[in-house]
Amino acid sequence: MPSPAITTSTFQPLPPALLEELVALLGDRFSTSASVREHHGSDISALDPMPPQAVAFVNCIEEIVSVQKACHHHRTPIIPYGSGSSLEGWLHAVHGGVCIDVSGMNRIIEVRIDDMDVTVQPGVTRKQLNAALHGTGLFFPIDPGADASLGGMAATRASGTNAVRYGTMRENVLAMTAVLADGRVVQTGTRARKSSAGYDLTHLLVGSGGTLATVAELTVKLHPVPEAISAAVCNFPSVDHAVRTVIQAIQLGIPMARIELIDTLTVRALNAYSKTRLQEAPSLFFELHGSEASVKEQVETLRMLADEQGGRDFEWALHPEDRSRLWQARHDAYFAALALRPGCRSVTTDAVVPISRLAECIEATALDLQEHDLSAPIFGHVGDGNFHAVILIDPRDPAEVERAATVAHRLADRAIAMNGSCTGEHGVGLTKQSYLQSEYGQNAVDIMASIKAAMDPHQLMNPGKIFARGTPLA
Amino acid sequence: MPSPAITTSTFQPLPPALLEELVALLGDRFSTSASVREHHGSDISALDPMPPQAVAFVNCIEEIVSVQKACHHHRTPIIPYGSGSSLEGWLHAVHGGVCIDVSGMNRIIEVRIDDMDVTVQPGVTRKQLNAALHGTGLFFPIDPGADASLGGMAATRASGTNAVRYGTMRENVLAMTAVLADGRVVQTGTRARKSSAGYDLTHLLVGSGGTLATVAELTVKLHPVPEAISAAVCNFPSVDHAVRTVIQAIQLGIPMARIELIDTLTVRALNAYSKTRLQEAPSLFFELHGSEASVKEQVETLRMLADEQGGRDFEWALHPEDRSRLWQARHDAYFAALALRPGCRSVTTDAVVPISRLAECIEATALDLQEHDLSAPIFGHVGDGNFHAVILIDPRDPAEVERAATVAHRLADRAIAMNGSCTGEHGVGLTKQSYLQSEYGQNAVDIMASIKAAMDPHQLMNPGKIFARGTPLA
Repeated sequence: MPSPAITTSTFQPLPPALLEELVALLGDRFSTSASVREHHGSDISALDPMPPQAVAFVNCIEEIVSVQKACHHHRTPIIPYGSGSSLEGWLHAVHGGVCIDVSGMNRIIEVRIDDMDVTVQPGVTRKQLNAALHGTGLFFPIDPGADASLGGMAATRASGTNAVRYGTMRENVLAMTAVLADGRVVQTGTRARKSSAGYDLTHLLVGSGGTLATVAELTVKLHPVPEAISAAVCNFPSVDHAVRTVIQAIQLGIPMARIELIDTLTVRALNAYSKTRLQEAPSLFFELHGSEASVKEQVETLRMLADEQGGRDFEWALHPEDRSRLWQARHDAYFAALALRPGCRSVTTDAVVPISRLAECIEATALDLQEHDLSAPIFGHVGDGNFHAVILIDPRDPAEVERAATVAHRLADRAIAMNGSCTGEHGVGLTKQSYLQSEYGQNAVDIMASIKAAMDPHQLMNPGKIFARGTPLA
Repeated sequence: MPSPAITTSTFQPLPPALLEELVALLGDRFSTSASVREHHGSDISALDPMPPQAVAFVNCIEEIVSVQKACHHHRTPIIPYGSGSSLEGWLHAVHGGVCIDVSGMNRIIEVRIDDMDVTVQPGVTRKQLNAALHGTGLFFPIDPGADASLGGMAATRASGTNAVRYGTMRENVLAMTAVLADGRVVQTGTRARKSSAGYDLTHLLVGSGGTLATVAELTVKLHPVPEAISAAVCNFPSVDHAVRTVIQAIQLGIPMARIELIDTLTVRALNAYSKTRLQEAPSLFFELHGSEASVKEQVETLRMLADEQGGRDFEWALHPEDRSRLWQARHDAYFAALALRPGCRSVTTDAVVPISRLAECIEATALDLQEHDLSAPIFGHVGDGNFHAVILIDPRDPAEVERAATVAHRLADRAIAMNGSCTGEHGVGLTKQSYLQSEYGQNAVDIMASIKAAMDPHQLMNPGKIFARGTPLA
């Protein structure tokens, strides 16, 4: 599927002096091989790859600094790369350049149990971190499904199924060490849990998608492993009934750890792909964390709220294996969706709206999909008002691709009109640039561009993302 | 007490054309009277006032825009003013200019119960908001003690006693409408609970202290009023025993709503000022929120943890009146401290450290105070690692003022050396500028200055705060 509104430029070849310098620095950890480049210029979206001109596999901050200083000297674009699990073309080398792969920087630098924080290199993945935390009584909750790198998760302001209780990367990154285009190393914060000192550079970098700096180290919050965990599934007469249950649960202050909405088509996909035997109806998957007694109390309140909204087949997964099976199925949703139609790819939406508008937004979108003759399982993080329609397309059918783009476009507009956002957790990347203006207004986009210009005056950091390159800068 | 390292400039008088324009715009809501100016050029710190040259009492966004456009045209400094409860000289007109008082913009624009958010004008105070929320089942938890305006609280990244459970302004502002120096209106976010769209301008403005823009409207999160609230007080053999209790409670995941540490001298001050009869020993004040059953369970666990650390006289305030009396006493701590020594003022510190270092930091500070022959009650937000030493000084005794400044300086350095921050919730303002560099490093300060230059190229917004005016800009 061609990337929207992007004409791939023919790049100047990398300057020989730059190639020489990077080979001298990294040896065989610097690659210009076609397969390595192809792999690094794509993600799990349906976008056709746009390979960088070279890939630098770095092992330490000093190497990031050296690579970036060399690229800066030659005015060559720089694209930071973590685990490649982007859904928005963040890694596509629209303007060529050197991809900096930090996956080898995967050392857990220090776990501090009393302070409940950890400092890691950016290539550490969330599963790796949680494995290392085993036995400490602490865990890292952010769970976007993919086993993403923490550097990448910070860059895209990732979240996932646990955000309703534990927040997103926005709430969980305490501080970062980052490298600016020109090689300057910036410390954005300290290990203080809160601070009012100066501008909040941590939050400026979280979500900036490598367009301001490369994340070279990060300190994130950890959370206590709950004494008791319980999970449940329940189906409802309609999406509206399910959402109403969630609104009431939140208003009662039930501290749900996960609360996921799965539409009927997604249930069908899961039953086929993950061999679950769920009732084919809009469903909620819950997870509750707390003490034994408080989880039991929450369970009872939730069941009562669900009953009032016509919830049926309320089923608790009390055993860890049942729970794992349930959440594995939820995490499989994206691939289960794709498996509904062999050979298809997807256009994945990421709209988020105030929860009072969520049912209306999903229902309008379902109707729009139907009217455009498209099939799209819908599921999402109902507590945050965020949902994904995985619009299944045959990438060789331009008319269908076009219809999917239209529906996705209309959904982003709909979410923004409801005072929501075009993207809850995937980011603007390559494909959602046109919505920034309607979401925030031109003045905000101008300010963002002026910050970009102040921090990266030569537009070398991941150019063509968030803003089209060539956007007039303030 | 003279402001540190600031030589008050003699300002050019305001241009007659500007005066005329502002009088025409605001009539008697534009004032150059000495008493109004004096009132607006001071705060509750010990700093001598530095009055602005005029005060503009605005009633709507359009008036903020008009005043700022006029000031921008004449290159006149602009100082936003909420309720005047700053502790760091944020309101002192170091370089003269026009103070924009938004306290008249105190309308609650819309409460949205299902979405648990509210949009307010910046002059709305936290008590006013909570009074208006009565009966909705929701409340706004951030409680810095003073009845501050929400605009000012956002500007200073305020927090207070509830932050350990509900976060600070950083976690609770969803979106702002703000006015740049040149009058451009910027929308920083939407009502989506999370978004990955573009740079996080909301968090950039939260804590920027009016140096980037004037907050003209804000949308904040609300939280469910808990079914049950319980409060308690308990004293300990030492600060270390108290802190150890809190670390264990946090690691067990007990969702404490407030957890405040009060040292022996503060207890003495409270007993005298608020007529409490607390044991004179380091003490913890707790508050727990939840369902009846979960609060009861938390109470029991906390009592057990306190017992293990030698906690004594564990006393629960189950009745709302007892609870109010306890927290009123805690809120009185600042004034109770001042009352220990009639006629004194205070140098108030605001250090924050990782909690594992908190007892050590407080003990080293207490020793330092003693060695410098200073009296200073210490209390603070132990769950966040943030504490205040209220160093009592006779403002007419330059030697004592100097000694207090030395100890405060050494404390900020100590906190930073422990990977903490010089300010947890009061902000850098006028007095903590020298620490930014040691806290974050020069590269981060340069980036902050370059963002300031990009958004406010003529350095008109609250000049002389965070950065000394004339700081070389990147």
